[in-house]
Amino acid sequence: MTLDPGAGASQAPALPGIHHHAIGLFEPELGGNLADVTLAYETWGVLNGRADNVVLLTHALTGDSHAAGGPSAGHRRGGWWDPMVGPGRPIDTEEYFVVCSNVLGGCAGSTGPASVDPQTGEPYGASFPIVTIRDMVRAQRRLLDDLGVRRLALVIGGSIGGQQALEWAVEFPDFVEKAAPVAATGALGPQGVGMSEIGRRAIMADPNWQDGSYYGTGRTPEEGLAIARMAGMMTYQSAPGQWERFGRRPAGRPALYPEFGGRLEIESYLHYQGRDLTGRFDANSYLYLSRAMDLYDVAGGYESVGEALSRVSADLLFVGITSDWLFPASEVRDTAERASDAGARARYAEIDTLSGHDAFLKDWTELAEAVKPFITKT
Amino acid sequence: MTLDPGAGASQAPALPGIHHHAIGLFEPELGGNLADVTLAYETWGVLNGRADNVVLLTHALTGDSHAAGGPSAGHRRGGWWDPMVGPGRPIDTEEYFVVCSNVLGGCAGSTGPASVDPQTGEPYGASFPIVTIRDMVRAQRRLLDDLGVRRLALVIGGSIGGQQALEWAVEFPDFVEKAAPVAATGALGPQGVGMSEIGRRAIMADPNWQDGSYYGTGRTPEEGLAIARMAGMMTYQSAPGQWERFGRRPAGRPALYPEFGGRLEIESYLHYQGRDLTGRFDANSYLYLSRAMDLYDVAGGYESVGEALSRVSADLLFVGITSDWLFPASEVRDTAERASDAGARARYAEIDTLSGHDAFLKDWTELAEAVKPFITKT
Repeated sequence: MTLDPGAGASQAPALPGIHHHAIGLFEPELGGNLADVTLAYETWGVLNGRADNVVLLTHALTGDSHAAGGPSAGHRRGGWWDPMVGPGRPIDTEEYFVVCSNVLGGCAGSTGPASVDPQTGEPYGASFPIVTIRDMVRAQRRLLDDLGVRRLALVIGGSIGGQQALEWAVEFPDFVEKAAPVAATGALGPQGVGMSEIGRRAIMADPNWQDGSYYGTGRTPEEGLAIARMAGMMTYQSAPGQWERFGRRPAGRPALYPEFGGRLEIESYLHYQGRDLTGRFDANSYLYLSRAMDLYDVAGGYESVGEALSRVSADLLFVGITSDWLFPASEVRDTAERASDAGARARYAEIDTLSGHDAFLKDWTELAEAVKPFITKT
Repeated sequence: MTLDPGAGASQAPALPGIHHHAIGLFEPELGGNLADVTLAYETWGVLNGRADNVVLLTHALTGDSHAAGGPSAGHRRGGWWDPMVGPGRPIDTEEYFVVCSNVLGGCAGSTGPASVDPQTGEPYGASFPIVTIRDMVRAQRRLLDDLGVRRLALVIGGSIGGQQALEWAVEFPDFVEKAAPVAATGALGPQGVGMSEIGRRAIMADPNWQDGSYYGTGRTPEEGLAIARMAGMMTYQSAPGQWERFGRRPAGRPALYPEFGGRLEIESYLHYQGRDLTGRFDANSYLYLSRAMDLYDVAGGYESVGEALSRVSADLLFVGITSDWLFPASEVRDTAERASDAGARARYAEIDTLSGHDAFLKDWTELAEAVKPFITKT
């Protein structure tokens, strides 16, 4: 049973809210080991007898397991994909058993740099091993296996969630029926990597970062994380969208920092977005997850992109966003074409919007139109 | 006489190298006052008898008065527009008397936040008043008047130099024969302002900034300035240009910071660019000049953009760069059209390149092609 207003399938087996499941020892592909990994997850809907009516939702950089459900104390805007998930919604919880887990390396219940290393009794901090998109997917697989899931009807997500969806199709071809990477490609371009690195430098240059060992010191790298978030937000929106939304209007809200020649609305917006994240996100997780985004290369471990994509047996839907400059639509489409060339059943849909990368978290009508034919197709 | 290899006009009247000229009390338009302003400048070529063969070069954010001349200790790449300025070059020093001054608020010889406030005997720091593009232009006018210049045959520059060129035509219509704003518009868009603000926040969040009073403390906000430069560099290059130049190649040069999951070439490039600027630029000047860029609005003080542009009597050439995302070509062209609609003789030329905003500092052939017909037209 679930009490989430957005889900509502009364026969759902799982308890509402966040569950924590231990998957044990985990060895990240780039080295190191994690003695005792836990994943936080939520579910909506009911697992069927064949255990194959499962949709895995994969979240973006600062997301968490709370994909669906209305506003609450911890999620004042509700689940990050709530309009997409529920009875009668594009991902119909009367048909599907929907699972969303916080990624490995995250800070919303799953093992990450803020977790205590059982080998030292101290938080990992910067001694946490580098984790990759593939590691996140492998950890999710172990969770799904333990939940008795036999096959994914669909894995879908945007941004680094889209990278995970693609990697699922490559890494576990026999387990995935459909995969839908939204606003993601096989490898982030140098402009996106550069923007990520600006954020990481801001965090690591903050003296409160303390080489990553700030837990329990009473000082956290809030200023650095806020700047990283500002840089992130820039990549989530488009230039024409920002002209429309902010223009050159002076700021209306109170200043968070001393004014320097006045304040435009775009600056104030970024300040508030930055400040907001510091209250709900761990700076070290930001470092690790943004690094995973940058390092992801679908060809990793294979001879070529083509070889990697030739492994896929799932139906693929790539969704590009016309005004996205983090994962440009042209590159998303190109990835779909490469998948098709490699023999995969790949299709491409495009959302025409000024919302930029963020469209997958706000342009609900367009998003539903793009993915619904793919989800309902048999 | 000038010894600058790139200039070489033996009959030039000015001494070679940087000159300093006091223009006295200056009252910035947004308030405050500067008791004793000095501008650093350089000249090439000879002022003619009518004192009207003058070209004013207006430099970009981190530029200086050294527009022309070969490499030297202080300018290891030579003057920032050297291929454009000299005998037989597009701005021909055998025909023109060329002047370039470091902007008000800068840190290369002109009065700026690092200068000593004669009223306190201490460096201004953050007590330096906000200066605008119009202030820079008004200060330049006083310098030119003192040099005996009667009329500008041409004012030309890129980025905030382009903003100055445009403002010259609006502010002093009777003084300017031709003005060529390159890679600049009447007002920066919110995306550019946001990127500026990321840089400013990084500087001001650096504890070594010390509210701007870091001079003489032995600590300067180098980390913050380096991050600001990284954000700036991102806006100076294009996504496709960065794919071509950096791709996803691993870094080749030694690391400047501890590695975090390896380093891609784009990251290493940004680190070196950031570090490089800290050795030659004052962080407070970065704050003030980036603020001037953001605040510039050609309509400022007028009823409308149209009213401002209707003042222009100079011939205008706007040059857009196809891959520029700081001042997008479409917005540059739009500004040219607005000027034309307002009655100005405005034309538009476009440089088709992957170099991004930086094209005006490197795509010499294309730049010369774009501006030469305008310069030579009588």
